[in-house]
Amino acid sequence: MRRKSFEDFDCSLAQAADYLGDAWVLLILRNIFNGMRRFDEINSHLEIPTNTLSDRLKTLVGRGILRREPDPVDGRRAEYRLTPKGEGLYPIMIALVQWGECWEGSPAGPRIYLSSRTDGKPLPPVQVRDASGLPLTPRQVVAKPGPATTEHMRKLYGGNW
Amino acid sequence: MRRKSFEDFDCSLAQAADYLGDAWVLLILRNIFNGMRRFDEINSHLEIPTNTLSDRLKTLVGRGILRREPDPVDGRRAEYRLTPKGEGLYPIMIALVQWGECWEGSPAGPRIYLSSRTDGKPLPPVQVRDASGLPLTPRQVVAKPGPATTEHMRKLYGGNW
Repeated sequence: MRRKSFEDFDCSLAQAADYLGDAWVLLILRNIFNGMRRFDEINSHLEIPTNTLSDRLKTLVGRGILRREPDPVDGRRAEYRLTPKGEGLYPIMIALVQWGECWEGSPAGPRIYLSSRTDGKPLPPVQVRDASGLPLTPRQVVAKPGPATTEHMRKLYGGNW
Repeated sequence: MRRKSFEDFDCSLAQAADYLGDAWVLLILRNIFNGMRRFDEINSHLEIPTNTLSDRLKTLVGRGILRREPDPVDGRRAEYRLTPKGEGLYPIMIALVQWGECWEGSPAGPRIYLSSRTDGKPLPPVQVRDASGLPLTPRQVVAKPGPATTEHMRKLYGGNW
């Protein structure tokens, strides 16, 4: 990726934004969460330049979000699968879909319905909740420095600490 | 923004990725969720080229995520505040921080502790949950087409519908 790296911003969000802050990465992950595994399969659903797709897949493998392994049917080809670190992005992906549907919806109604197999009911919006499950607003959340806080984060959160 | 627009991908995630898939946008939003409102304040915590910051703020105002209004102290200056649409990004921001902290943590321990004012307890991870509050894995979630489903989304989710 061509732009400035945020790796030196030692902040939890900057670390995530460093490679998730890329529309192609988000769309590639969407396809993989939807069960696509092979390069040409991901490519055919995305109309992405193949060198861009190679670059992003390499980054995602390098950062431990995807693992690359031989296709069980044709060993010359590769499959891409989510690692546990990649699966950890699931709440972010669903929250993005729900936010897009809520705020950038189509006038013709919902484009997609998400529901749970546990009870067949619609998926409630992903929310920030306290330990007892109560939804929280930004003002109800407190940030405190941990042992690995950096000068950068101290300045950033200074007003709230 | 210089790259391909995803607006014509009529998919809820692509709509969100179109402008959230940008590391600067995520970091600007982080600063604004942390209470920063003025251009120079956001800038001083981000070391962002001023023309890039102007461009991203203009996009975020244009997409209805921020509103720009005169600074109540000095009317010649502007303040940027989250709209309800912008506040709707809060679960995504917290999930990104938690994911970064969990998977890109510092060996020296946590950089940040998030807790709730409601009970003083640590914030549990943002999760996808069913209507009764049970956490869900990707395989427990079903996607079905809505009335505004497009050919693009039908192809994308085809395998799962």
